Amino acid sequence: MRIARFSIDGNVAFGAVEGDQPDELVLDIIKGIPFADFELSGTKVPLSKVRLLPPVLPNKVVAFGRNYAEHARELGNEVPDAPFAFFKPSTSVIGPGDPIQYPSFSEELNHEAELAVVIGRMCREVPRDRVQDVIFGYTCANDVTARDVQRREKQWARAKGFDTSCPLGPWVETDIDLAAASDLTIQLTVNGEQRQLGRTSEMIHPIEDLIVNISEAMTLLPGDVILTGTPAGVGPLGVGDEVAVTIEGIGTLTNKVVKRG
Amino acid sequence: MRIARFSIDGNVAFGAVEGDQPDELVLDIIKGIPFADFELSGTKVPLSKVRLLPPVLPNKVVAFGRNYAEHARELGNEVPDAPFAFFKPSTSVIGPGDPIQYPSFSEELNHEAELAVVIGRMCREVPRDRVQDVIFGYTCANDVTARDVQRREKQWARAKGFDTSCPLGPWVETDIDLAAASDLTIQLTVNGEQRQLGRTSEMIHPIEDLIVNISEAMTLLPGDVILTGTPAGVGPLGVGDEVAVTIEGIGTLTNKVVKRG
Repeated sequence: MRIARFSIDGNVAFGAVEGDQPDELVLDIIKGIPFADFELSGTKVPLSKVRLLPPVLPNKVVAFGRNYAEHARELGNEVPDAPFAFFKPSTSVIGPGDPIQYPSFSEELNHEAELAVVIGRMCREVPRDRVQDVIFGYTCANDVTARDVQRREKQWARAKGFDTSCPLGPWVETDIDLAAASDLTIQLTVNGEQRQLGRTSEMIHPIEDLIVNISEAMTLLPGDVILTGTPAGVGPLGVGDEVAVTIEGIGTLTNKVVKRG
Repeated sequence: MRIARFSIDGNVAFGAVEGDQPDELVLDIIKGIPFADFELSGTKVPLSKVRLLPPVLPNKVVAFGRNYAEHARELGNEVPDAPFAFFKPSTSVIGPGDPIQYPSFSEELNHEAELAVVIGRMCREVPRDRVQDVIFGYTCANDVTARDVQRREKQWARAKGFDTSCPLGPWVETDIDLAAASDLTIQLTVNGEQRQLGRTSEMIHPIEDLIVNISEAMTLLPGDVILTGTPAGVGPLGVGDEVAVTIEGIGTLTNKVVKRG
């Protein structure tokens, strides 16, 4: 099931996305909370009539660095032996179609297409063979990065945590299992031109290892998001650019870069 | 005013702390939300009858690294030209008296006493001369760190973000202004023995600069917490140790280290 979060007439709701043709999609409004028991109401609205929101409001976004060897090398970095993680704050999260605001303190904004794992239940110290049980689903993410700031500042709170630096969406796909999620095409275009292309099977540390690694240290909550790293091809974003992340079997997350107002 | 958050008979409330003698403190229960309009109810309970909770539930904790020159040097690091920040997640926050759980993946837990600034209103791009207006008050923090993990992992999500790594409390002092907060004694003891001693006036980048720096990049929300760095004297914590952070004019935050159960 594809679960979207949206606003309509000032109300916020979740809905199941039905249909295959992009311009004929319909939302069946969900009664209840997607992470707990819920049912479909049968009340349907065309997707074109609503504003999609970030599909989850994460308490925390945990992002893993340098998890595709070719990407680590393109930035002149060593491929790390063990995973390492940083946080993007909830204030950085935006939804599909929301503008990415070019930050005032950077002159080198970069895109990074990533598969995002959405956590479904509160968990800590998840054993490798139970990882599937704590995953709610998957969505697309763009780990937007102020590359110049990242080089200057030892920790990346500002470089990767500024407002609008974490587009998520367009919805959460819950019908993909861990095996399928571990072998999907991930692609990014800028103004329709392909810039990043990879497969999630190229991750150095697979999804299971990332969840084991982070949950060893901290409690994950329903709606928390794990970003799994970006394949090679990261590059600049400028004001006016339209950037789109497409992941096979999930969908396309599109955002436009604007000057911060 | 000293504003505490506490639980009593299963309910959570805020209260104003009255009295001077540690064993005679009383809480005047607050009607409303401390960050907005509120009044004192006049209903009082002895502090000894309640369980204190973290005085705020931050959406995010932003922590600045190496902000006291002597501390930077004691770890063999250069004193940074510009501030740099990292996040501690909300799941790392505990209150006064709560146990610090020694993490399973570290063998070198360290204490770091810090002055914590509590944000009072939603803000972004705060000018230097408006910083006072966005501050709600101050509390004590312990930026508990898995030092061995910090050395191994390039970003510090696990080393400084594990569960129980962010004790805050005992309450928020709202009667200190920025000038006063910038010249307070900060002290840490382990089992009653002094380990850290400094003054907030020794910060390389003062509180104003830290808030300008981080709010340039991201929106701060009421209840968000800024950790301002630790003075020299950081050192080991072991299971069974009682660690206490005392800041002049605020109070003492005490926590005991336990084995993770």
